[in-house]
Amino acid sequence: AVEADSGKSALDKLSIGGYGELHYNNLQGEGGASDKKSVDFHRFVMMFGYEFSDTIRFFSEVELEHSLSGDDKPGEVELEQAYIDWDLSSNLTSRSGLFLLPVGLLNETHEPDTFYGVERNNVEKYILPTTWWEAGTGLIGRLDNGVTLQGFVHSGLETNADAKYSIRSGRQKVAKANAEDLAVTLAVSYAGIPGLTLGGSVQYQEDVTQSQDADAGSATMLEAHVDWQYEAFRLRGLYGMWMLDGDGPKSMGADEQNGWYLEPSYMVTDKMGVFARYSTWDNQAGDSADSAKAQTDIGVNYWIHPRVVFKADYQWQDNDSDKNQNGFNLGVGYSF
Amino acid sequence: AVEADSGKSALDKLSIGGYGELHYNNLQGEGGASDKKSVDFHRFVMMFGYEFSDTIRFFSEVELEHSLSGDDKPGEVELEQAYIDWDLSSNLTSRSGLFLLPVGLLNETHEPDTFYGVERNNVEKYILPTTWWEAGTGLIGRLDNGVTLQGFVHSGLETNADAKYSIRSGRQKVAKANAEDLAVTLAVSYAGIPGLTLGGSVQYQEDVTQSQDADAGSATMLEAHVDWQYEAFRLRGLYGMWMLDGDGPKSMGADEQNGWYLEPSYMVTDKMGVFARYSTWDNQAGDSADSAKAQTDIGVNYWIHPRVVFKADYQWQDNDSDKNQNGFNLGVGYSF
Amino acid sequence: AVEADSGKSALDKLSIGGYGELHYNNLQGEGGASDKKSVDFHRFVMMFGYEFSDTIRFFSEVELEHSLSGDDKPGEVELEQAYIDWDLSSNLTSRSGLFLLPVGLLNETHEPDTFYGVERNNVEKYILPTTWWEAGTGLIGRLDNGVTLQGFVHSGLETNADAKYSIRSGRQKVAKANAEDLAVTLAVSYAGIPGLTLGGSVQYQEDVTQSQDADAGSATMLEAHVDWQYEAFRLRGLYGMWMLDGDGPKSMGADEQNGWYLEPSYMVTDKMGVFARYSTWDNQAGDSADSAKAQTDIGVNYWIHPRVVFKADYQWQDNDSDKNQNGFNLGVGYSF
Repeated sequence: AVEADSGKSALDKLSIGGYGELHYNNLQGEGGASDKKSVDFHRFVMMFGYEFSDTIRFFSEVELEHSLSGDDKPGEVELEQAYIDWDLSSNLTSRSGLFLLPVGLLNETHEPDTFYGVERNNVEKYILPTTWWEAGTGLIGRLDNGVTLQGFVHSGLETNADAKYSIRSGRQKVAKANAEDLAVTLAVSYAGIPGLTLGGSVQYQEDVTQSQDADAGSATMLEAHVDWQYEAFRLRGLYGMWMLDGDGPKSMGADEQNGWYLEPSYMVTDKMGVFARYSTWDNQAGDSADSAKAQTDIGVNYWIHPRVVFKADYQWQDNDSDKNQNGFNLGVGYSF
Repeated sequence: AVEADSGKSALDKLSIGGYGELHYNNLQGEGGASDKKSVDFHRFVMMFGYEFSDTIRFFSEVELEHSLSGDDKPGEVELEQAYIDWDLSSNLTSRSGLFLLPVGLLNETHEPDTFYGVERNNVEKYILPTTWWEAGTGLIGRLDNGVTLQGFVHSGLETNADAKYSIRSGRQKVAKANAEDLAVTLAVSYAGIPGLTLGGSVQYQEDVTQSQDADAGSATMLEAHVDWQYEAFRLRGLYGMWMLDGDGPKSMGADEQNGWYLEPSYMVTDKMGVFARYSTWDNQAGDSADSAKAQTDIGVNYWIHPRVVFKADYQWQDNDSDKNQNGFNLGVGYSF
Repeated sequence: AVEADSGKSALDKLSIGGYGELHYNNLQGEGGASDKKSVDFHRFVMMFGYEFSDTIRFFSEVELEHSLSGDDKPGEVELEQAYIDWDLSSNLTSRSGLFLLPVGLLNETHEPDTFYGVERNNVEKYILPTTWWEAGTGLIGRLDNGVTLQGFVHSGLETNADAKYSIRSGRQKVAKANAEDLAVTLAVSYAGIPGLTLGGSVQYQEDVTQSQDADAGSATMLEAHVDWQYEAFRLRGLYGMWMLDGDGPKSMGADEQNGWYLEPSYMVTDKMGVFARYSTWDNQAGDSADSAKAQTDIGVNYWIHPRVVFKADYQWQDNDSDKNQNGFNLGVGYSF
C-alpha cells in the first residue's frame, strides 16, 4: 500500500483521477418510437495509477454505470482499464492487461469535457463499439515524425444470431470471457502537424461467435478518423465498417455493418463552443432492407472550468424505419 | 488524473475520505414478527473531492451496501453524491449534479460517529426517506445571521399502488430515473446561536407516480427539526409529513404519511454518551386503520477516538399490528 | 475527508494500495469434463487505510471480481476487509470489524506477486476456503520470541445439504449474514527463525448450518502450514481438515473434508522462479466413495519488478471421477 508517511517517494508514485457525467433526456417518439424523459448519472469513474519505476507503470479505470448496481438494478460496475505499461526503449512500450482498444476518436479519450454533445455519437457506439476494452498484450511504438503504431493480440467479441450479429452485443468485457477465438488489432495515428490528428485501425478475428455458430465466421474491421483544429474551428470525422463472413450474418444483412459522422464546431468565446453533427450508421447494411439510421445534432458546450462542462443539444433522427426520437438533452460533466 | 509527481499543487486539490458501519442485530419477534439475528457490514463508503479552482469544487460519495453486490447478491453499489459546487459570490453557491437533499438531521450528515444508535431512526428512514439523493440544480445562500437558504429543482419520486404509495419505495436513485415529473425542494436552517440548529424543508412534486397512475397526483412534504446541545446534554427532534393527492393513495390511507422522534442524550464522560429515543411513524395515516408504528431505544456510544465509535442499544417496538421486534443491537463505525 | 490542503498531517494518515490479476486459461476436458478457454480479469482490488492515532488504525479492501458486476453479470463487488485495529499495548492489538481470518498461507496474503501459479491452489480454495472473511472481534498478541497468537469471535458459515455441506458454499461474506450461530478461531504462528514461518489454526462453530438443518451440527477445522526459504529454494506446504457433526453431512461423506499441498520452488535468477505443486483434496472424504481430487502444477513466475509478475503454468488433474481439466494458464499480476 502507498502510505503517505513512508516518505514523499511513495505518494509520488500514485495518481488518482476521475470523471463523471449526468444526463437529462427529453425526447418525443414518432412512428412508434417511445418517448424518453429520463435523468441518469450515466457514468461515474475513478482512475488509479501507480509508477513502479521509470519504465514500468500501472493504470486503471473503474466505472459505476447508471448510478446503481446490484441484483435487479439498472447499472453495473465495470473495470475498463487495468494494465501494465513497460517501456522497452524510449519510444517502444509493451502493454499487457485489460485496456481500451486504440480505435476511433472517443474510445481512448472519452472524458465529457473533451467532446461535444450530451450523449456520445452513435457511430462510435454501435459500430466501433465504444467503450471497448479487451485483455491481451501488444506494443506501442512512437516514431519521431509524429506517427504512433500500435499492435495487440487480445480477447475477442462473441456475437450471435439472436442479437442479429450486432457488434455492440458482442462485447464480453473480459468477464469470464470466452477465449476460443482471439483477435488482432493494428492502429496507426499521425500527429505531426499542429492541430491535426489522423488515425486509422484494423481488426481481425477468425470467428466472431467464438466458434459457437457454424453459420458465422471471421470479422474484419476498418476505421479511419480525423480531428482538425484551426483557430476557433474544429472538425472531427470518422468512418468505420465491419465485414462478417458466413451465411448467418449474410442472411440478415449483418455481413456489412458501417457508419460515419462529421462534426464541425466553433468556439464562440473562450468558454463556449457550438457544434453540429451528422451521423449515419447501419448494423444490417449487407442487404437491400431499409435498416439505416441517421441523426443530426446541434448544441452548445459551456465550460465553467476547462474540465467542468455544461452541455445542451437538440437531436433529430431520420431512421429508415421512420421510428425516431427527437428532442433535447442536457448534461453536466467533469474530469480531474 | 491527479499525479503526485506533478507538484504539490495537484495533490492539494484532491480530498479523500470514507466511513463505514458494521451491525449486529439480535431481535426477538412477537405477534408473528420474525426473529432477526444478523451480522451485516451495512455501509462502506468512500468519498472523493476535487477543487478545480477557488470557486469550483467537485464532491462525490460511493457506497457499497451490505458488503456484497452482484447478480443474486444482497447488496448494491450506489452513487450517493456527485456534484459540482460553483461559488457565485462569497455567500451564494450553485450546486448541480447528484446530491443529498437538505431534509432532516441525518440525510446530509450520516457518518456513524455523528449519531446515536446502531441503526438510523425509522422516521428518517420511512418518512423522509434517508439516504435520499436526487439529480438537479439549485442555489445555496448563506446569510450573515446564521440562516442558510437552499432551493433545488430535481428528479422526483416514483411510487405506485403495489408499494402502497410508500415514500421510501419511490426513490429512483438517479438510475435511468423516470423524469416525467420533477420536484422542487426548499430548505431553511438557522445556526445563529451556539449549540442550537433549527431547520425545516418543504418539497412539492406534481405527480408522485411520474404520471404512471391516473388515481394518484401531487405530493407535498413538510419537515422540521431541532438539534440543541447544552453542556453535556443534547436534544434532537424531528417531525415530517407527506400529503398525497388522489383517490389511489386515499383508498389505502397513504394520502397522509408522517412521523416524529425525540432523542435526549448525555455525555457521561468525554468518550461515552447515553441516549434514549422515542419514535413513531405511519405510512398509512390517512385512514382510521391501525397502521402506526412506534419504537423506543436506549443505548450507549463509546468513542475510542472522536471518529471511531462502538455502539450498543436496546429496542422495544409498539406497533399497532402487535407485530414487534425487540432486542439489542451492537455496532462499530468510523469516518475519516 | 482527508484533504491535502489541510496540511501534511492529514495526508500522512491515509494509505492507498491495490492489486490485480488477469488470467488466461486454456484447458482440455477429459472423461466428460468441459474444456475451458477463458480470459478473465479475476480480481481488481483497491485498499484504503487511515491512521486515526498512534494506536488506532483503519484498514479496508474492496474487490471487483470478474471485471463486471451487476444484474445478470458474472462478477461481484466485495468488501473483503474493513476493520479497526486498536493497540492496547505495544504487543497486544484488538481488531473489530470485517477481517480476513488468520488461516493458511494465502488467506491474509494473496497479492499475485507473492505466490506461484496463475490460479490459487485448490486446497486453500475448497478446504479453507480462501478468500475467507468474517465480521467479529478479537485479539492479536505478538510475543518477543517470534510467536503471534490470535483469537476471534466472528460470524460463521451457513452450509446446507443441497450444497453437499461443502465448506466453500457456506461463506456468507458478512452480507446480511445469518448470525444464529457464531464461530471461534484461534491461530498461532512462529517466525522466530529467519526464512521460516510455521503456523496453524483451529475453528469451532456450534452449528454449521446456522441451525437451519436438524440433521447437521457443529464444525471443527484444523489447519497447519509451513513456509521455508533457504537461499534460492523455497518450500510451502499446508494441511487442512474439517469435521462436521450430524447425520446429514455423514450421509454424503461430508463429515470429513480435507486436503494438503506441497510446493517446492527455486529462484533461477533474481527475476525468475520455477515451481512445482502437488495438491489433493476431498470435500466428501468421510465415506469410501471415490471423491478425492488431485492436481499437479509446474510453472514459472517472471517478475519484471518485485511487485509486477507474469506467470505461466501447466496443470494435470487426477480426480477419482476421471473428469479432469488439463492444460496451461497464463497470468499477469501486480500490487502496490
